[in-house]
Amino acid sequence: MKPNFTLRLRVFNLNCWGIPYLSKHRADRVKRLGDFLNLESFDLALLEEVWSEQDFQYLRQKLLPTYPAAHYFRSGIIGSGLCVFSKHSIQEFTQHVFTLNGYPYMIHHCDWFCGKAVGLLVLHLSGLVLNAYVTHLHAEYNRQKDIYLAHRVAQAWELAQFIHHTSKKADVVLLCGDLNLHPKDLGCRLLKEWTGLHDAYLETRDFKGSEEGCTMVPKNCYVKQQDLGPFPLGIRIDYVLYKAVSGLYISCKTLKTTTGHDPYSGPPFSDHEALMATLCVRHSPPQHNPSPTHGPAESSPLTSVLREAWAEVDQGMAQARWWATVAGYAIGLGLLLLALLCALAAGGWIREAALLLWTPSVGLVLGAGAFYLFHVQEAKSLCKTRTELQHVLGRAREAQDLGPESQPALLLGQQEGDRVEEQ
Amino acid sequence: MKPNFTLRLRVFNLNCWGIPYLSKHRADRVKRLGDFLNLESFDLALLEEVWSEQDFQYLRQKLLPTYPAAHYFRSGIIGSGLCVFSKHSIQEFTQHVFTLNGYPYMIHHCDWFCGKAVGLLVLHLSGLVLNAYVTHLHAEYNRQKDIYLAHRVAQAWELAQFIHHTSKKADVVLLCGDLNLHPKDLGCRLLKEWTGLHDAYLETRDFKGSEEGCTMVPKNCYVKQQDLGPFPLGIRIDYVLYKAVSGLYISCKTLKTTTGHDPYSGPPFSDHEALMATLCVRHSPPQHNPSPTHGPAESSPLTSVLREAWAEVDQGMAQARWWATVAGYAIGLGLLLLALLCALAAGGWIREAALLLWTPSVGLVLGAGAFYLFHVQEAKSLCKTRTELQHVLGRAREAQDLGPESQPALLLGQQEGDRVEEQ
Repeated sequence: MKPNFTLRLRVFNLNCWGIPYLSKHRADRVKRLGDFLNLESFDLALLEEVWSEQDFQYLRQKLLPTYPAAHYFRSGIIGSGLCVFSKHSIQEFTQHVFTLNGYPYMIHHCDWFCGKAVGLLVLHLSGLVLNAYVTHLHAEYNRQKDIYLAHRVAQAWELAQFIHHTSKKADVVLLCGDLNLHPKDLGCRLLKEWTGLHDAYLETRDFKGSEEGCTMVPKNCYVKQQDLGPFPLGIRIDYVLYKAVSGLYISCKTLKTTTGHDPYSGPPFSDHEALMATLCVRHSPPQHNPSPTHGPAESSPLTSVLREAWAEVDQGMAQARWWATVAGYAIGLGLLLLALLCALAAGGWIREAALLLWTPSVGLVLGAGAFYLFHVQEAKSLCKTRTELQHVLGRAREAQDLGPESQPALLLGQQEGDRVEEQ
Repeated sequence: MKPNFTLRLRVFNLNCWGIPYLSKHRADRVKRLGDFLNLESFDLALLEEVWSEQDFQYLRQKLLPTYPAAHYFRSGIIGSGLCVFSKHSIQEFTQHVFTLNGYPYMIHHCDWFCGKAVGLLVLHLSGLVLNAYVTHLHAEYNRQKDIYLAHRVAQAWELAQFIHHTSKKADVVLLCGDLNLHPKDLGCRLLKEWTGLHDAYLETRDFKGSEEGCTMVPKNCYVKQQDLGPFPLGIRIDYVLYKAVSGLYISCKTLKTTTGHDPYSGPPFSDHEALMATLCVRHSPPQHNPSPTHGPAESSPLTSVLREAWAEVDQGMAQARWWATVAGYAIGLGLLLLALLCALAAGGWIREAALLLWTPSVGLVLGAGAFYLFHVQEAKSLCKTRTELQHVLGRAREAQDLGPESQPALLLGQQEGDRVEEQ
């Protein structure tokens, strides 16, 4: 790595809306997307909602000359829908499937069946280690009464923790994906505060694209008004986030989004808008004092967002326990009903009706049993998240008490000593 | 960190066999274990099979003066059973739940309900970063016909990958736990080859304990002969594994195991034997040439173990797909039966029998449906593991082709350059 080098990284991100049989004009959109990616020759193209592995294989073949490396992240029953195409060889990849991801009985929402996850790719570019993450969090179906809020906060925390623990030796960290979170939503703030990632849209001086950087806009012919809820002008839920370790300086030179059409003013690639960012990594200029991820000025927002997340997850946990209790009563009721039906059938009274009711009663017991087990597991997972948040919160408070000088070291754990037995 | 310092780390590991209502003398064993841990004052005590959170809370209270830091890893429906007590403050913790962990319909084996996982603790000791991992893999119920083999290999790989990706900045890595793997089993070799961890039992010059370091021995009054299967003299399935980064040198000064009794020749703490290791971390002596994790001599065993794991996972995947197909036929059969029963009942023929058969038919359709979904997910997860193994195998072969000098860099990705655009 020469001292005056600049690493220029061109990144593409798109939620492809690739649901087999349901998404309109899928084949045509995937074809046009492949043509565009080949023409533009990005360093990395990170895609979400490629639910069909055939679509991935089609793109893989088509993009092979321009993007020799590719990976599809498999998980859950349907799949995570995440995949990536890279101009550079991929050194390593792995993935983490989120512990909580909605409810299996909310079949019409389908998220549970997808196994939503975060995928990690490690690339080596001019002696720098780049950790690139791609993710897709649980969808928001009703902003006013969001039953998935605790799950999405837990996912944002798991995502942040995964990045935090796997990127400790990375020089550059990049996260792209559909977070299903607005910029000021709790999960988004939590992710940014805990990882120290910067938002390309907020950082760049050269932005071209949809108003306010929205990635779902009413101009897009695949977007229905109800998808935007109380935001008729559009929402920003897809992101390019990045950071570099100290000694390096990363900036977003340009950021573009599509604006309800494809880049040639043709029909859109998806119901989401694509993000195209050009990032520059340089050595820190001498006058630049590399600020730690959680510096003094940031410790207060971190504490406050951790506290907020703790409260949200705690509420979710109470809710999960309540549902488990309800399920417990339903199991009891079902068993009682079954006993009654057995007695009626054995006694010869309304025998046929008793036999007819046998199926729903067994169904009630088994269904309530599964419901109970699911919510016990949900409560346990939320409890795990709450404990982790509590621990970090405790350490953030400790750091605040010790004063600004000790904060970065204590929170990031660079140097703190402990007891040692010396010989 | 002084140049001539030695960090001495005393570690305790035990699978506690703490199943509420089922494990014999649980309360007494937990009490005596607490007394012993307090007396010995280890740096770290890592426990498995603490299934009851009450047991953990009891130990937490009891051990508070000696081990001010503690953590219980919650997951799944029952819990991971993992917990840890530390004399030193815990900087960070997180966990990864294994994607595959047996079958929900194998209720009598129960593993699926536990949410088996690996827990990570980050500690800072005299300026060194210690990543301590605790884990418990899926049990082996029948060595001759092990239906869980592919799952255990996949778990060992996920464990190895989790350690590999989260310990890149750690100075010292420690893994304790019940791997349910014999030393020469595929999963154990895969884990050691990919992470570069060393086995305390094989490395120490001062071992005291059961023959061959066994951690389940026939002398233990809680061990039944059938638990040992074809190994009547005992099996070694619990481990203390470690490594240090280059520049540091770690050795196991002493390793002890209990021998079917507690350390005072009283009744045993568990049906497993406890491991007690004293590890020493020093600066590398000048004559010591720190060998890379995957050095030239080791690349061949790595390639061969990766190939073996690939084949095992591939076979598991074929099996999973076969079960999914069987389930598909069962769904069809169930639907056919239901239609027939509806026709019979409507026509007034053997109405009562038709109504009686209604419940098992609906059960067949729903059960087969759940079975189908589970095995589709299993196949997907195994496919993910296979792809990761394939990728690493490809890179290991590449490294071999390039000759011994390029191997460590290529495999561990320390320095390899790639295309770069310079300005």
